[in-house]
Amino acid sequence: MIGGGDGAYIGNIHRIAARLDGAWQLVAGAFDVNPEKGRAFAGGQGIDEARSYGSYQDLIAAEQDRADRVEAVAICTPNFTHFPIAKALLEAGFDVICEKPLTATLADAVALEALARSSDRFVGVTYTYCGYPMVHEARVRVAAGDIGAVRSVQVEYPLEWMATAIEQSGNAQAAWRTDPAKNGRGGSIGDIGTHAYHLAGFVSGLTLDSLTADLATFVPGRALDDNAHVMMRYQGGARGLLWSSQVALGHSNGVRLRVFGETGSLQWFQEQPNELILSPLAGRVQTIKRGADDLSEDAKARTRTPAGHPEGYLEAFANLYAGFAEAIRAQREGRAPGPLGRNLPTASDGLKGVAFVEAVVDSHEAADQPWLRPVAV
Amino acid sequence: MIGGGDGAYIGNIHRIAARLDGAWQLVAGAFDVNPEKGRAFAGGQGIDEARSYGSYQDLIAAEQDRADRVEAVAICTPNFTHFPIAKALLEAGFDVICEKPLTATLADAVALEALARSSDRFVGVTYTYCGYPMVHEARVRVAAGDIGAVRSVQVEYPLEWMATAIEQSGNAQAAWRTDPAKNGRGGSIGDIGTHAYHLAGFVSGLTLDSLTADLATFVPGRALDDNAHVMMRYQGGARGLLWSSQVALGHSNGVRLRVFGETGSLQWFQEQPNELILSPLAGRVQTIKRGADDLSEDAKARTRTPAGHPEGYLEAFANLYAGFAEAIRAQREGRAPGPLGRNLPTASDGLKGVAFVEAVVDSHEAADQPWLRPVAV
Amino acid sequence: MIGGGDGAYIGNIHRIAARLDGAWQLVAGAFDVNPEKGRAFAGGQGIDEARSYGSYQDLIAAEQDRADRVEAVAICTPNFTHFPIAKALLEAGFDVICEKPLTATLADAVALEALARSSDRFVGVTYTYCGYPMVHEARVRVAAGDIGAVRSVQVEYPLEWMATAIEQSGNAQAAWRTDPAKNGRGGSIGDIGTHAYHLAGFVSGLTLDSLTADLATFVPGRALDDNAHVMMRYQGGARGLLWSSQVALGHSNGVRLRVFGETGSLQWFQEQPNELILSPLAGRVQTIKRGADDLSEDAKARTRTPAGHPEGYLEAFANLYAGFAEAIRAQREGRAPGPLGRNLPTASDGLKGVAFVEAVVDSHEAADQPWLRPVAV
Amino acid sequence: MIGGGDGAYIGNIHRIAARLDGAWQLVAGAFDVNPEKGRAFAGGQGIDEARSYGSYQDLIAAEQDRADRVEAVAICTPNFTHFPIAKALLEAGFDVICEKPLTATLADAVALEALARSSDRFVGVTYTYCGYPMVHEARVRVAAGDIGAVRSVQVEYPLEWMATAIEQSGNAQAAWRTDPAKNGRGGSIGDIGTHAYHLAGFVSGLTLDSLTADLATFVPGRALDDNAHVMMRYQGGARGLLWSSQVALGHSNGVRLRVFGETGSLQWFQEQPNELILSPLAGRVQTIKRGADDLSEDAKARTRTPAGHPEGYLEAFANLYAGFAEAIRAQREGRAPGPLGRNLPTASDGLKGVAFVEAVVDSHEAADQPWLRPVAV
Repeated sequence: MIGGGDGAYIGNIHRIAARLDGAWQLVAGAFDVNPEKGRAFAGGQGIDEARSYGSYQDLIAAEQDRADRVEAVAICTPNFTHFPIAKALLEAGFDVICEKPLTATLADAVALEALARSSDRFVGVTYTYCGYPMVHEARVRVAAGDIGAVRSVQVEYPLEWMATAIEQSGNAQAAWRTDPAKNGRGGSIGDIGTHAYHLAGFVSGLTLDSLTADLATFVPGRALDDNAHVMMRYQGGARGLLWSSQVALGHSNGVRLRVFGETGSLQWFQEQPNELILSPLAGRVQTIKRGADDLSEDAKARTRTPAGHPEGYLEAFANLYAGFAEAIRAQREGRAPGPLGRNLPTASDGLKGVAFVEAVVDSHEAADQPWLRPVAV
Repeated sequence: MIGGGDGAYIGNIHRIAARLDGAWQLVAGAFDVNPEKGRAFAGGQGIDEARSYGSYQDLIAAEQDRADRVEAVAICTPNFTHFPIAKALLEAGFDVICEKPLTATLADAVALEALARSSDRFVGVTYTYCGYPMVHEARVRVAAGDIGAVRSVQVEYPLEWMATAIEQSGNAQAAWRTDPAKNGRGGSIGDIGTHAYHLAGFVSGLTLDSLTADLATFVPGRALDDNAHVMMRYQGGARGLLWSSQVALGHSNGVRLRVFGETGSLQWFQEQPNELILSPLAGRVQTIKRGADDLSEDAKARTRTPAGHPEGYLEAFANLYAGFAEAIRAQREGRAPGPLGRNLPTASDGLKGVAFVEAVVDSHEAADQPWLRPVAV
Repeated sequence: MIGGGDGAYIGNIHRIAARLDGAWQLVAGAFDVNPEKGRAFAGGQGIDEARSYGSYQDLIAAEQDRADRVEAVAICTPNFTHFPIAKALLEAGFDVICEKPLTATLADAVALEALARSSDRFVGVTYTYCGYPMVHEARVRVAAGDIGAVRSVQVEYPLEWMATAIEQSGNAQAAWRTDPAKNGRGGSIGDIGTHAYHLAGFVSGLTLDSLTADLATFVPGRALDDNAHVMMRYQGGARGLLWSSQVALGHSNGVRLRVFGETGSLQWFQEQPNELILSPLAGRVQTIKRGADDLSEDAKARTRTPAGHPEGYLEAFANLYAGFAEAIRAQREGRAPGPLGRNLPTASDGLKGVAFVEAVVDSHEAADQPWLRPVAV
Repeated sequence: MIGGGDGAYIGNIHRIAARLDGAWQLVAGAFDVNPEKGRAFAGGQGIDEARSYGSYQDLIAAEQDRADRVEAVAICTPNFTHFPIAKALLEAGFDVICEKPLTATLADAVALEALARSSDRFVGVTYTYCGYPMVHEARVRVAAGDIGAVRSVQVEYPLEWMATAIEQSGNAQAAWRTDPAKNGRGGSIGDIGTHAYHLAGFVSGLTLDSLTADLATFVPGRALDDNAHVMMRYQGGARGLLWSSQVALGHSNGVRLRVFGETGSLQWFQEQPNELILSPLAGRVQTIKRGADDLSEDAKARTRTPAGHPEGYLEAFANLYAGFAEAIRAQREGRAPGPLGRNLPTASDGLKGVAFVEAVVDSHEAADQPWLRPVAV
């Protein structure tokens, strides 16, 4: 693991996710830009101090020649460092698990995706929400035609924790997220809108054609958008509406997806993730529960407990980690992966996400965007 | 009442609403284009057959000279007839209660609003959702600064009943709604999007600056949009996102409004109308219940039962009717109306609604609307 | 109408209910024990002052000889007066609509039910919750075997408004409800538990065999129970659990019914009355919406608007009034009543309710009720 | 670990829970009554085959002399075997983590609790629901007086998976649960009612005084109750109502607790475990979210992610395991445990649970239990 040391939020999530199903063991890392602190942290995690490195370069140098070298490396550092680290790891022959977004700039994303494609290494990107079993269930059902041809997608990702200028009062998580140099050009759209965009495409199976967008920065002094509205047109004529916000009071982590087809709709809400709501054209609104007998193989492979025993965010994250393990193992063994190792977010998805954010910001900044004013308002 | 005879949906709603609080008595009407059927219908309603007229012209001619002439006339006919009927009624000195939209064309709306302004007659427009007490409560709270300056508004009005081409198989309600000559240029945006637009402005107190929109027609053969996405910019910098759909399977009548301010948010959902969700910046998500002791005068005036005894759509409609009665009575008595007679939807709101729909359709049809395509999707 | 004058809560509800569907006209009454106040009140309601009487005796005396005498009389007075008023009305040949409970004592209930049975007059009792269309839908489905033989019933009616000793600080509604002489022996069980008991039997179709109960009075100084727990055994072996409470903070009017059968269950919640939740043995949890096409004739007859347009408490009450009108009219016309006039709560239900309350209080007070203490707690 | 091998449901849950926070490592076990299968299973778990034993006796014999002997042993076998295994482990000086119920008979429970008390070993019992952070939050708030003196408790645990006679068609989980010899005298009340009883006492802080109960067996041929109703009286006058059912169609794992006090109430529902609903006497219904800043130390110690990132059943179970680790470590280090190691379910709770089930069955079977029949039903 690179980054994710003392005080890091997402690093701990990655570790729990890796450990939960017993598919991974954390044996080495460069956890902190301060090597001393990194070593202390490694010790607390029961990791051999000799394998706690001062930098990712040191890690690569030392690990690449070990017989028991690490199998894959998780990158849990701020966005702008993803590219050099991932590049170096791939070139040294390591499989990579990278936090989203893949990179902070489009050029980096294009380059990294090309490198991933040309290498024989695996690059997984942690688009967390496609780790949820009921998201897979939704994807399978759409693909199977259960709701007919998709007409429209409504997706939103509202948050409230950045509703005030906490980046100006010492919140490190907010500070790098609002710094264009570290985060990239997209504020809310890059941080969470990209999750929503991936989720919508993952479930609907649709490919974006074009978009037009409106960004806003509501917190005074903030350098990036904290609220984004995007109208999307998908290839084939379906439409989408996407809203991301970091200032939506009342919403803790309100990822919500609704997909409307010709013969039905599906709705999923991340804060109640064990349910999927199916509304068929003929018939009643139904609740599909995680753990039910009639779920798809894809959903069943990502669940551990019966219906009624809530699984959540950590289990979804663990499903990604278990999936990456299965994909890597299958690759090495020259076999097709099992259901856990399929439909995983990879470098290609990472690139699409970065390109989406670029297009949203470009659309917002376009000089010729026409806004009409009604004659009476 | 003009229109609203046998088989008419909205006419019956108007009658129940007028009767519920005992503020109105239905004594005359031109209920049907077929005078025989109209007369039969009037009889069934206990109305003197002599006052069941064959046309609105007949009604005006006969009623305007009676000592006990009707006090106000409700127009419950298809959109394109609103203008001539309302105009004739106003010119004959009747107060008018008109179904939304005010008219089918912008020119008619402009003319009618001007006429209403220059006359001393009252013109109420039945934007139903601002009849709900908790919508008033939300309006009062926003106006009082309870959520601070408004940053953004999310409003949606999804329906499912036109998800297939029912207008082609004899559904009269769907037939005129999909006929541009009878309905106007806006399909879903004119039928229900205009409700959402009014509701958003009513509660937020915001005035629209400009918009950009994307319409879609998903049901083959349909002549008007059945799904609309609108990005809005309000004066002062607030943003809005509006979605209306007549093909959103799973949604019966899903009007939902969320208003986000600097220090709080409010959420209201029409299918659970007795609750208002308040999320303050500091503190917990709270449920404000209709019937609670600490509600505003505006909300209390529009409620009849204690908390926990659900009131709904008919009570909201009745609140409009009771409000129209109070406004008209106060006008005649030369006094300020009580709370029921304030903040009512009038011709001015009707014009704004029609202008909004025009701008949405114009935006969608604009040749220069730029849509960007990401480099990777 | 007897009682229900100025300041009376339930009287106003009865009037709205009677008026909502246009089935009744209020033309006479003895609204107040103070004739002056009663007359003033009648005037405000648009009632001929000559038909505003000083007592129920006066009303009977004056009305019984009029050609246009009232057709039925609603009794909206405190419990202990129901019996003499209803008795006098029946003996004078009036149809009666009586608030629940039928009477304050079992002896009165037995006598009144016998009188009702031997007369040819109609006696309706306003068990409000069986006015809801989705309650009828539930009843029809259970009767049709949709959930198989019923195994158990969970019913509760929690309220919060009497959580403190408001009867000691001037609340008239609470004062008579906590006075055994005016209310009868059952506190929460008589006021609201009787609603829950009726509802459970109405939907399940089950007949009670026996019960054992535990009452509590939590507010110091209160003379009657404010919390009741009842275990029920129905004939045939089904079981029931009933909870009523006037001190359940957080619950406004939380009537909730769940009926579990061999092949499915049904759940209905009064604060969201437009939905019925069906959980079949095979298949998914489903939401049955009021207004759907596939509802029973009984439910359809009790609804005015499409799905998604909430109807509530007043519409349920209006359904009872419309039903009483239909039942009375059918009786006079010597025909079978239509669906609205069937399955109405009558004197027989009123007697069962009073008998239930008596048995609950008797059970609680029984000297020999064995309570076991575990060896370790 | 004893038991919990191939195909065992709860064994896998214990392993995930132990692993999730990295507090435990599984190094030895007697996983299966068939030693071959046990060994194969151990291999799959990455456990040294030499420490995969054929029986708990073998495990004790081999492990008790190792320098790196296991620190604690988890018992995941059917109920009737808990006692001999736990006894042997305690006598050999191992700490014990035991599935609930503690034992299958009251005599065994009394003996085991005494043994635990007199030994210096730790005995944890996995009453899962007190592992949830919001259950701890509720406990802390009740103890702090936030809802005033507790008046009543409503607790229910409905399940649906045994609604048909699946024990007769090869379902092993159902088979031992319906066999009195393996499960004990209580069916639903022993399997899940005991969870509900523990949860109610844990949060309310109340001590049971006495109870009266009604059991039912709805599935033909079943030897134990599958539905239980219990009325409870707590010391000091508070009341409780408990319902457990294995045949409640529609309920997956519906543990629900409501605690009503003089000045507020708290509600928690296991299928939405990240929320706690607080209804104060003065003020509005509020949602307390896991992850909020103002939660108790006890709740915060049991959470890993911010609000909005659902944690669930496995995290609750992991909290118990992390707590057992902390309690054992603190005991060895002679210090007071941190918040995770406090308020854990131990042998004493296990005994109370078994005694409760005994009393419920005794009450139901008591010859003198009076059930009253109303005079009219």
